[in-house]
Amino acid sequence: MATATGVQRAHDHIKTLLVHTPILTSSTIDGLVGCKVLFKSEHLQKTGSFKARGAVHNMKIVTERGTKGVITHSSGNHGQAVAWAARAAGVGCTVVVPEGAPAAKLAAIEGYGARIVRCENTPASRASTCSSLAEAEGLDEIHPCYSIDTIEGQGSLGLELKEQLSSVPPIFIAVGGGGLASGIALALPDTPLYLVEPEEKKLTQQIDGSEEVQQLSLPTIADGIRTRVVGPENKRILAESKNIHVITVSEAEIRAAMVLIWTRLKQHVEPTAAVPLAGLIKLSSQSPSLPFQEAIVILCGGNVDVSFTL
Amino acid sequence: MATATGVQRAHDHIKTLLVHTPILTSSTIDGLVGCKVLFKSEHLQKTGSFKARGAVHNMKIVTERGTKGVITHSSGNHGQAVAWAARAAGVGCTVVVPEGAPAAKLAAIEGYGARIVRCENTPASRASTCSSLAEAEGLDEIHPCYSIDTIEGQGSLGLELKEQLSSVPPIFIAVGGGGLASGIALALPDTPLYLVEPEEKKLTQQIDGSEEVQQLSLPTIADGIRTRVVGPENKRILAESKNIHVITVSEAEIRAAMVLIWTRLKQHVEPTAAVPLAGLIKLSSQSPSLPFQEAIVILCGGNVDVSFTL
Repeated sequence: MATATGVQRAHDHIKTLLVHTPILTSSTIDGLVGCKVLFKSEHLQKTGSFKARGAVHNMKIVTERGTKGVITHSSGNHGQAVAWAARAAGVGCTVVVPEGAPAAKLAAIEGYGARIVRCENTPASRASTCSSLAEAEGLDEIHPCYSIDTIEGQGSLGLELKEQLSSVPPIFIAVGGGGLASGIALALPDTPLYLVEPEEKKLTQQIDGSEEVQQLSLPTIADGIRTRVVGPENKRILAESKNIHVITVSEAEIRAAMVLIWTRLKQHVEPTAAVPLAGLIKLSSQSPSLPFQEAIVILCGGNVDVSFTL
Repeated sequence: MATATGVQRAHDHIKTLLVHTPILTSSTIDGLVGCKVLFKSEHLQKTGSFKARGAVHNMKIVTERGTKGVITHSSGNHGQAVAWAARAAGVGCTVVVPEGAPAAKLAAIEGYGARIVRCENTPASRASTCSSLAEAEGLDEIHPCYSIDTIEGQGSLGLELKEQLSSVPPIFIAVGGGGLASGIALALPDTPLYLVEPEEKKLTQQIDGSEEVQQLSLPTIADGIRTRVVGPENKRILAESKNIHVITVSEAEIRAAMVLIWTRLKQHVEPTAAVPLAGLIKLSSQSPSLPFQEAIVILCGGNVDVSFTL
């Protein structure tokens, strides 16, 4: 079971190895949204996303235990993070990559020296390709979002925020498999978390258990959160958390937020990183006034092809 | 005559009103270039470029003297900066804009409440439209790069670097009209300056006086430095400076540098901001080893249309 103590342990290890990412602001965006927006800049993290946190923590666990090598499946950021962390630890690494993954992310995975194995672009093909190779070759599988070590590693972001700010305001987080959201929920149990999802995800129903959704790749521009299903451990943590809110955003709302981040904050983030701001803007447009004066928006990653246009 | 004392006076005033822009780094880019690269992030300055420095300083000068309003000509960044500074000072503002200026820059100028007057996209039309309106309406003209107040205002960037760093390494600067380069040359007379120009500019010949070049709009992707001619005062300062080096870069080299800044530094800068890095990469590729361990690259602005692609 992933715990707050586990997150603290991961954080103590991770913080000496990774970037303490800065918090950026834009007075123009503050004016548009109606509160002070603190952009936690994980796109400036090693390998360009928060996934480096879980990857470094996983690598510590497997190397302490002894490993023949690691394997994971990823359309991008997690694959880059694991490939980078494995190289740093001197561990062999294989990444199962679905067809259609962004070229920038693939190039980076190869650049970190990992072996790439292609599979079909379905959740089932990803999982089965990965686990059968792991078994055949005796490799340690590192899950992008569902495992305890990954959740506890990602949760270090919450503890880093606590060190950076005198008090941590509500946090807006994009949710895919739920690794980051559940990690932060463990790290900051008293902080309101706004979980922002693309359409068709049904996060509320997943968390309250009212509907068993099928795994599929969501047709969203936000390629980092196309995984629909939140893992069992992630779901348990989110269900037990107080102060969880879910906001659903459209593709147009994600694009509009991305334009603001590119043109006003001048940060070259990937589409997924625009999802939390889209959620905050939606909340702001629906309420006469926001229930807070400050909010944190997590810019989760910056790995986007140069040819990408809005 | 612009002087180091004038730069200091401008800096003392400006530094309380503008952003002390951060210095960003990327270990990947360091590895590619072969030295530690310190990216001075003026794209995170108010209005998205260093031009806010000269604009704020000019506004102080004209308001102390008393003014009926200001006028300038600009394809973008200077216009935004003057419009913003004028609004903050409660001064009316007119910006003469050539046809073909980027939509993002135009929208921002209008957003700051300035009156826009269109002209043909030639240096002659810009200058004459601006000066005849200034005369007809009794407005104070604020030159984008040639005037003493503009040069001294831009020079504040050099003094800010001196405050940020224990010692200031060589600086790579994109050169258009020469306002920033000459201001920094006054501020940091002992620091090597690498002036990076697009093709056909003939900066060396302009500085050493060996050729009188014609004014024209250079056909470069770097829309912020299409002005070919370096002003007389700027030229005087650069000619008197020790430690001036000129590097010419191609359009392909500018694009390649921009890809690195977008994908590795994750900063959504405009093409002109990639010019200094292109110069540093070129120098690095031509030398067995660089004559310094660290260099400053000025990211001069971040005002680029969302539809822009490389």
